[in-house]
Amino acid sequence: MDTRRERMITTKWGEFMIIVMQEKATPQDVEDVVNRVKKFGYTPKLMEGEFRTVIAALGDGRDKAQLQALESLHHVESVMPILKPYKLCSREVRRENTVIDVNGVKIGGNTLVVMAGPCSVEGLDQLMQTAKACKAAGAQILRGGAFKPRTSPYSFQGMEEEGLKLLRTVSDETGMPIVTEVMNPREVDLVHQYTDIMQIGARNVQNFSLLKEVGRLTKPILLKRGLSTTIEEWLMSAEYILSEGNNKVILCERGIRTFEKATRNTLDLSAVPVAKDLTHLPVIVDPSHGVGYWQWVASMSKAAVAAGADGLMIEVHWKPEEAFSDGPQSLKPEKFAALMVELKKVAAAVGREL
Amino acid sequence: MDTRRERMITTKWGEFMIIVMQEKATPQDVEDVVNRVKKFGYTPKLMEGEFRTVIAALGDGRDKAQLQALESLHHVESVMPILKPYKLCSREVRRENTVIDVNGVKIGGNTLVVMAGPCSVEGLDQLMQTAKACKAAGAQILRGGAFKPRTSPYSFQGMEEEGLKLLRTVSDETGMPIVTEVMNPREVDLVHQYTDIMQIGARNVQNFSLLKEVGRLTKPILLKRGLSTTIEEWLMSAEYILSEGNNKVILCERGIRTFEKATRNTLDLSAVPVAKDLTHLPVIVDPSHGVGYWQWVASMSKAAVAAGADGLMIEVHWKPEEAFSDGPQSLKPEKFAALMVELKKVAAAVGREL
Amino acid sequence: MDTRRERMITTKWGEFMIIVMQEKATPQDVEDVVNRVKKFGYTPKLMEGEFRTVIAALGDGRDKAQLQALESLHHVESVMPILKPYKLCSREVRRENTVIDVNGVKIGGNTLVVMAGPCSVEGLDQLMQTAKACKAAGAQILRGGAFKPRTSPYSFQGMEEEGLKLLRTVSDETGMPIVTEVMNPREVDLVHQYTDIMQIGARNVQNFSLLKEVGRLTKPILLKRGLSTTIEEWLMSAEYILSEGNNKVILCERGIRTFEKATRNTLDLSAVPVAKDLTHLPVIVDPSHGVGYWQWVASMSKAAVAAGADGLMIEVHWKPEEAFSDGPQSLKPEKFAALMVELKKVAAAVGREL
Amino acid sequence: MDTRRERMITTKWGEFMIIVMQEKATPQDVEDVVNRVKKFGYTPKLMEGEFRTVIAALGDGRDKAQLQALESLHHVESVMPILKPYKLCSREVRRENTVIDVNGVKIGGNTLVVMAGPCSVEGLDQLMQTAKACKAAGAQILRGGAFKPRTSPYSFQGMEEEGLKLLRTVSDETGMPIVTEVMNPREVDLVHQYTDIMQIGARNVQNFSLLKEVGRLTKPILLKRGLSTTIEEWLMSAEYILSEGNNKVILCERGIRTFEKATRNTLDLSAVPVAKDLTHLPVIVDPSHGVGYWQWVASMSKAAVAAGADGLMIEVHWKPEEAFSDGPQSLKPEKFAALMVELKKVAAAVGREL
Repeated sequence: MDTRRERMITTKWGEFMIIVMQEKATPQDVEDVVNRVKKFGYTPKLMEGEFRTVIAALGDGRDKAQLQALESLHHVESVMPILKPYKLCSREVRRENTVIDVNGVKIGGNTLVVMAGPCSVEGLDQLMQTAKACKAAGAQILRGGAFKPRTSPYSFQGMEEEGLKLLRTVSDETGMPIVTEVMNPREVDLVHQYTDIMQIGARNVQNFSLLKEVGRLTKPILLKRGLSTTIEEWLMSAEYILSEGNNKVILCERGIRTFEKATRNTLDLSAVPVAKDLTHLPVIVDPSHGVGYWQWVASMSKAAVAAGADGLMIEVHWKPEEAFSDGPQSLKPEKFAALMVELKKVAAAVGREL
Repeated sequence: MDTRRERMITTKWGEFMIIVMQEKATPQDVEDVVNRVKKFGYTPKLMEGEFRTVIAALGDGRDKAQLQALESLHHVESVMPILKPYKLCSREVRRENTVIDVNGVKIGGNTLVVMAGPCSVEGLDQLMQTAKACKAAGAQILRGGAFKPRTSPYSFQGMEEEGLKLLRTVSDETGMPIVTEVMNPREVDLVHQYTDIMQIGARNVQNFSLLKEVGRLTKPILLKRGLSTTIEEWLMSAEYILSEGNNKVILCERGIRTFEKATRNTLDLSAVPVAKDLTHLPVIVDPSHGVGYWQWVASMSKAAVAAGADGLMIEVHWKPEEAFSDGPQSLKPEKFAALMVELKKVAAAVGREL
Repeated sequence: MDTRRERMITTKWGEFMIIVMQEKATPQDVEDVVNRVKKFGYTPKLMEGEFRTVIAALGDGRDKAQLQALESLHHVESVMPILKPYKLCSREVRRENTVIDVNGVKIGGNTLVVMAGPCSVEGLDQLMQTAKACKAAGAQILRGGAFKPRTSPYSFQGMEEEGLKLLRTVSDETGMPIVTEVMNPREVDLVHQYTDIMQIGARNVQNFSLLKEVGRLTKPILLKRGLSTTIEEWLMSAEYILSEGNNKVILCERGIRTFEKATRNTLDLSAVPVAKDLTHLPVIVDPSHGVGYWQWVASMSKAAVAAGADGLMIEVHWKPEEAFSDGPQSLKPEKFAALMVELKKVAAAVGREL
Repeated sequence: MDTRRERMITTKWGEFMIIVMQEKATPQDVEDVVNRVKKFGYTPKLMEGEFRTVIAALGDGRDKAQLQALESLHHVESVMPILKPYKLCSREVRRENTVIDVNGVKIGGNTLVVMAGPCSVEGLDQLMQTAKACKAAGAQILRGGAFKPRTSPYSFQGMEEEGLKLLRTVSDETGMPIVTEVMNPREVDLVHQYTDIMQIGARNVQNFSLLKEVGRLTKPILLKRGLSTTIEEWLMSAEYILSEGNNKVILCERGIRTFEKATRNTLDLSAVPVAKDLTHLPVIVDPSHGVGYWQWVASMSKAAVAAGADGLMIEVHWKPEEAFSDGPQSLKPEKFAALMVELKKVAAAVGREL
């Protein structure tokens, strides 16, 4: 962490903005913008074309919103940032992959990590049986929701602290580290006591208060991509966590919202190679939420591994047809076990282990 | 509020689900589903076609996630709810428009409400001058952010409590009620002390912890639509607030995320007549975030009024080119005043006052 | 037309591309790009920042795809065009509004134009009665489809030439000019014989063969925006028509495809002020396809006029519940007449006539 | 083909529509709908719930648009089709996979097919060298565009017939069958003379005139998914071709349009297992257009194979930095060869050959 803070202080924050003047801009207009750029502490450089003048503004970019405000001027057409807005999570600041250790399970290394378990914790039996089956099939980490973000206030909202306790019990019994979601800054301390990895769900990817809060912890954070979050915005949300001091962030693609109706979401697997290129953080995939129907989870799991994902998060339920939530997308334990066998082959084909 | 709770208890929650069997389903499969439907407490009714059997499940729908889980069965093709999932905010439960009174300003009545002011509170002078100009032009409510949800952790995050105090000071001086955003359940009490309307921003529309928290207050809540929230989901978020006891919810359309790049978002004005049809709550529009550039705010403000909106939320800044946030979409006070004159004419044309 | 060709030849086609080098680019890499820029006939200008070098390429931009190919180089991060890709349809080439005269009906002037009629031509009675009712209510132009683009091959495909003849008959009887769709380059001549305005439907907005074909005609073209066409791409499709010699293009916003399900499409009314700013062509709105349900057509028609549209295209059917296509979105004649009364008021409120 | 027509005639076209009445509907309203359903030739079945009546309409569904028109009635809330709208291309009509033979290359069987080559045909040398390199690496089919759909009228539009001749020459020399795009119904005969597979591009997926035209040919058709086409609509476009008599359709996923900007499109790999489930037609993937940058083509190619695709279409160019079109997304021959080695391993891992 200290290293991270040091890195943050010593990182050069060069900014490079391109300000395009309107075609009709006069020399006075250009001078006006040049002066404003200087006033904001940037160095202006002019480039005059036949029809437009373009002004480059160079300087420190920690807050470039101010420069962007110049777009409101009549004689300015647009203000475009040239550099990426995230720093601490970028490959340019750290070339090598970040590998996160969770009680001995390494996430982001050559061995793939599979997190499996039910959508919601529903009871001890359900959780214990499912966990044991998942472990036997090769899953290293147990997933299960105790606080559930549900579209309807009338839907099951999770077992809350009782669910956390069940997760802890099953984790102690099986030796599997657990990952569970936290939704409320008020509950961060509570969830932190029980879990090994804290999950920030898709709907909270831009819940900046929550991001800051978990950024002050030392346990790893699994950050799901939002339904309509660009990859850049997702990395900015990771940057919130890193900038508070916690650099143990695992990114998780889980599908974005598009016009397509056959699947619950559109799993954007290209986000895997793109994010792996732009950042040093591990990237895993949740195909269950991505497609929404168990029939297509196996295909997309294999595709995710082939695309270069560092792991998977898969919903497994002993009786999907009686699940309190997300039954249609849950695999039965035997189907999950069969999938794990296939996944090992695909992993090997792309030089990874499982 | 008591009325609301009573309404909630006495409301009939009839549910009507359609379960479509696979073409290859056997009579045994159909019987299996029929038995499961009964076990969940619903009454099954069969409809046999030449190629498919369809089963209707009738009953109480407070939690229909369980029935949906039947989709995971091999012999079931799909499970479709027929009725709307929201109740308390629906027109079917309450025919007449809800009108919300904020210190004498009525929202949802025949007179349109205009909320105007800067994106962020930046200082006393900025806020006071802008507020006075907005009031002089006819705005009834002052907007201003003290806690700012920003994509980047390095951007200005708002003046926080100091900003709230400035809002209170300016409100007391001008007599304008204020609306300001709350992002964190931990800060709900603090913001509640200072503001007249609590705003839930687009990124928190499915922050269910926050929705429940503000649902227990008595002050009105302005609920923005999320960037990728369907109208139905938006109403479900309103339902969260109503189901906790607070029925003073103002809906605010502010643009959704699409592939279009010329505007910051795509302002979905059809959400106005649709939401007005489906719910009894007031619906206003924020064209500033919708389009993202001041040049197009006037056109879209007029369009929103013509579409039937109950009011507008417009960003006004005395010096947009120096704004700490959202400069490009802020109107100067004189442009705002000119717009108000035009809006009065459009309001009159559709039988509303301003 | 000659003027247009002249304009095309004498228009200055200045291009201004920004080439951002990778952070790790060496001086040799920069020189390599500089040489390639020169080879493509552009003038390179260097701008060196602390972390990046940026190269501006100035020159003639008629085909800038070649410069874009430099993005494939390892040491180049991105290539960004600064200027707009359309010329002939842009406000920069022609400041004043284009007004198109169709047998005395002026489109793009101060008086709004309403095109109304059934989705499909279904028979003489249906068309004649509907046309007379539309005319009596104040519509100036008759719409009706003879060739119908249908998602399903098993749906009614239109009355084809017989439908065109009915349109002509009704036009002659009522004196209303007609607008009808052409889908196939092979049928352009046929449709051209009968119609006054040729419509290019949303699904053909990037059917470049068809665009070139109608670009060689002299009759006006109504160009609908595609379901997933950006405003810029839509203008590029208009540019195809103008660059072939036909500058009588009417743009028509009709809704884009988003995740929202309550409406058939999402009517993007902000496209009206944006397109009016960027181009000199008239812009009208089709709220019927935009929302897909007659209940919301009136609100969105009024909103379109308030947003600054130059006209509307509205589906009217004498018996919507028996329509061969698009029944749910068609207004009955009496509802259309009532809407026209309201539209006159909104038009007056924004300084337009109807 | 005769078999197909026979199949079409003998296929049972059962339709099953669900008509949901408004809550306020009276018994007279229900009777009205029942009578209309009968008039349209369907058999109505009633299901009365506590709050709603639902009417099922059973019958022949070749044109169900008429039933949908009932949605325009005041007392009807919605009309929902229960069965899939496509028939000839559905798994329900034909269980076994369709395998298409192109001069000995089998598409849709256990062996994967790779189509590779430049975006545009630019000259003999370019095409011949690229083709030979692709063949040496294991590609079976040569791709290359002679007619190019370009957003800008000022961009290179393809070598047209000269390009077709070059494709033929290179095909004869290398023995690779070719696939090339046809855009205009007028050019179908011309392209048909030269090519082995006719490609319908993404922008023409709903160019129904073109679909009908190629549906009358006997050569295979490669049908790309449109930028905003749902999987169901894409299959309906295939149905257009099949219903004209040509059942040799190869589906090609190539990315859909979303809000994401890091990639050119969002490659929807879940479309592979979904389409393979719903239809008996082969499904291949074009990762080049999907991501738009060569850096991510290899990852997504491997993912496509792991997802179950029957083949790939990949852009390869000997000098991407000088390509007339799509340079940034083209692989150099040596990178393509390296990818083919990796693909063989992934194919083997999922039980396929290459």
